[in-house]
Amino acid sequence: MTKRIVVIGGDATGMSAASTALRHAGHGALEVVVLERGHYTSYSACGIPYWIAGDVASRDELIARTPEQHREAGIDLRMRTEATAIDLDKRSVSVRGVDDGDTYELGYDELVIATGAVPTVPPLEGSEAEGIFGVQSLEQGEQIVKDLGDGDRRRAVVVGAGYIGVEMAEAMVTRGLETTIIDQAPEPFTQVDPDMGALIHEAMEGMGITVLTGVSVDGFDVGEDGRVRAVRAGDTVLPADIVIIGLGVKPNASLAADAGLTIGASGGITTDVRMQAAPGVWAGGDCVEVHHRLSGKPVHIALGTHANKHGRIIGTNVAGGYGAFPGVIGTAISKVCSLEIGRTGLGESEADAAGFGYVTATVESTTTAGYWPGAEMMTVKVLAEQRTGRLLGAQIVGREGSAKRIDVFATAIWNGMTVEEMTFMDLSYAPPFSPVWDAVLVAARKAAKEVQAAVPASPV
Amino acid sequence: MTKRIVVIGGDATGMSAASTALRHAGHGALEVVVLERGHYTSYSACGIPYWIAGDVASRDELIARTPEQHREAGIDLRMRTEATAIDLDKRSVSVRGVDDGDTYELGYDELVIATGAVPTVPPLEGSEAEGIFGVQSLEQGEQIVKDLGDGDRRRAVVVGAGYIGVEMAEAMVTRGLETTIIDQAPEPFTQVDPDMGALIHEAMEGMGITVLTGVSVDGFDVGEDGRVRAVRAGDTVLPADIVIIGLGVKPNASLAADAGLTIGASGGITTDVRMQAAPGVWAGGDCVEVHHRLSGKPVHIALGTHANKHGRIIGTNVAGGYGAFPGVIGTAISKVCSLEIGRTGLGESEADAAGFGYVTATVESTTTAGYWPGAEMMTVKVLAEQRTGRLLGAQIVGREGSAKRIDVFATAIWNGMTVEEMTFMDLSYAPPFSPVWDAVLVAARKAAKEVQAAVPASPV
Repeated sequence: MTKRIVVIGGDATGMSAASTALRHAGHGALEVVVLERGHYTSYSACGIPYWIAGDVASRDELIARTPEQHREAGIDLRMRTEATAIDLDKRSVSVRGVDDGDTYELGYDELVIATGAVPTVPPLEGSEAEGIFGVQSLEQGEQIVKDLGDGDRRRAVVVGAGYIGVEMAEAMVTRGLETTIIDQAPEPFTQVDPDMGALIHEAMEGMGITVLTGVSVDGFDVGEDGRVRAVRAGDTVLPADIVIIGLGVKPNASLAADAGLTIGASGGITTDVRMQAAPGVWAGGDCVEVHHRLSGKPVHIALGTHANKHGRIIGTNVAGGYGAFPGVIGTAISKVCSLEIGRTGLGESEADAAGFGYVTATVESTTTAGYWPGAEMMTVKVLAEQRTGRLLGAQIVGREGSAKRIDVFATAIWNGMTVEEMTFMDLSYAPPFSPVWDAVLVAARKAAKEVQAAVPASPV
Repeated sequence: MTKRIVVIGGDATGMSAASTALRHAGHGALEVVVLERGHYTSYSACGIPYWIAGDVASRDELIARTPEQHREAGIDLRMRTEATAIDLDKRSVSVRGVDDGDTYELGYDELVIATGAVPTVPPLEGSEAEGIFGVQSLEQGEQIVKDLGDGDRRRAVVVGAGYIGVEMAEAMVTRGLETTIIDQAPEPFTQVDPDMGALIHEAMEGMGITVLTGVSVDGFDVGEDGRVRAVRAGDTVLPADIVIIGLGVKPNASLAADAGLTIGASGGITTDVRMQAAPGVWAGGDCVEVHHRLSGKPVHIALGTHANKHGRIIGTNVAGGYGAFPGVIGTAISKVCSLEIGRTGLGESEADAAGFGYVTATVESTTTAGYWPGAEMMTVKVLAEQRTGRLLGAQIVGREGSAKRIDVFATAIWNGMTVEEMTFMDLSYAPPFSPVWDAVLVAARKAAKEVQAAVPASPV
């Protein structure tokens, strides 16, 4: 008998689950229905800032697979269609057409919840004004591109200096706008420690971006035409022709919560290692929380790479295979003009919150042999557990060719390596690729020294 | 009492051992004498091809530290001075001035042998002719640069298509010479498997280099002026205005052998994990053999990064500290014009020789998101042990931004990871740095499938 899989959400997790399930299952064994509220499927939300900046030529390049392509693969894809309720007992989803308002019930054998995330929008005066945009969906990206083309936009203010914020600040300054980025934290990019954030601060100012930190936004001044005119932050009034909100996202888990599924402290749906939230109900991507391998705590990390992994695991499981998600260690990477930022594991505040005692070591190195003409600078910071020397985290801020090294640290953390064990690892060397001592090894060695220095001569 | 350390050889291992020892030891505790036969200390031999190509502006940039700088650091550095014999019982070295022929005996408390490697030179007719060069020392690099400037050199032939060979072929073609590279193996660059070597072959031809493989050199035609005129290989006569020999190197261990130290099957001096060859006698760098962590066998791998590690370990040990070399896994990286090549672990022939049963998987991917304007292609090949799925090796051939990923595989091998364990590792993702599934993960996943497929349903 054909089993029906219903998937709510047609982006990374949902479509990856749908296609993986169909690929795994024998012909005719599965009926896969995907409900997608918007106009697009399988697009790279992470690419939106680069499209707006002009690095990526057109919107269509961000679309990995169109609705038509998914349908050709045998998926019953229903666009502009949303799920309004889930009945776990009846194994049924209430469905509504976004445009026509038609409703119906859709029974399922297995349900996949891939409802993604929604932007964090603070309740600020004037936040509904025209000219204020989030950067969460392709539709929003289109609105920004259209808005920038519509009139003479000279001054941009970006609220929030996380991934999306700094990438959008790059996009705005690349398009020639006078750009200010504002964040309440002492330094931008709190995904890294403040000492590393200070390097990003300095580099962004070098790119002509005004960086205001330690300042909260109080509201927006709106013109008579209903369009934003300025951002108010304490005593400061920042004139703005366009405002981008980049304050992060939170799990879009209300549908799941209403159905009675368990929601964790992070706001994300909780699942088991196979991404199962309840018998026959699977959830993945930006709407779930996942296990952090270092802190041992559940965390919400909205990233396309996790969303795709979840989709593949869920697709394997609903087709009768075995897939399990091993958790995350918080690896991420970003680019702001010529600056690269990588991080993995725990930062200082995260290590503190998890209760770790640790040492830190920061080194400067070059991406290649120092004498190589393309040599670029980078700063590498490492956190290691005191006593054991176990690598807890690493952060890289540098120029072109630096940040992808974060994957070496990520692999080391994944395996529970100590910084001492890393010191003489056999990493690749040739003058165009690194100094004889790669920055990873130099940082590990310095951290190992700090671990030694922190051990009392006669431990009690 | 002051202990005297005598170091034979003033390049990476020797000078690193000398300076590390002085840094570790208290003031006046050590007298460090270094004997160096040549004119230079602490230079990057790996950088020579890039200097000849013009990527690196001048010879001096390759010199990390001059003799004067070492002397200022308190090292008794004796240039143009060679050791002619070691007496282990008397703890004494026979020393000779290269220029003046003066000889003397020099007693030591601890001896460091860092005599490096010598190029493999086949006994071929005409190989002593002018215009035929090795690329082992800075002196040889100078001779090549001078020779290229001296006359109208239009045709270069490079003998041997390993690291130095392909890098020198790049240098020659970059300088505008009509360049042919010749090797007896079926494909160039036997440090990777023939299927990956075929990609290098094709790319080099795309750069305008003529690649002749499966052909042995028989000798050289020499003109009446004593200068090379052609390379003879079977029926082929290759006219040549300059010939570069890049046939690899072998350990320069004769001094150690004559003194009665143990020489391994690879030709390198054998040491313990602390790089001690005999009580009070240490050896490191290109003249020793080291432990391969996968095959369990001693190997000779001449690389600046290992030489520097050995130097640091020896310096720590002779100063009374503790340093141990954990062995190698054969990681290496190279660049030929816009092509990057990385390898780690075992290739197929090495895995065969070690007795492993294994599966392979090869994937193509991009360095960035496919839609990113700088996206470059790469091919990744992975070897995994059958049954266990343990990662045994990886090879990357690709364009800019691809090959440094080899360090992720190296770290995974170092930790004994299986390809299955690697499949969902938390590696960094953002469009300018990788697709949502980094090439490392895609290759691991495909290899994991091969491992599964190779396991019989009912293992005996």
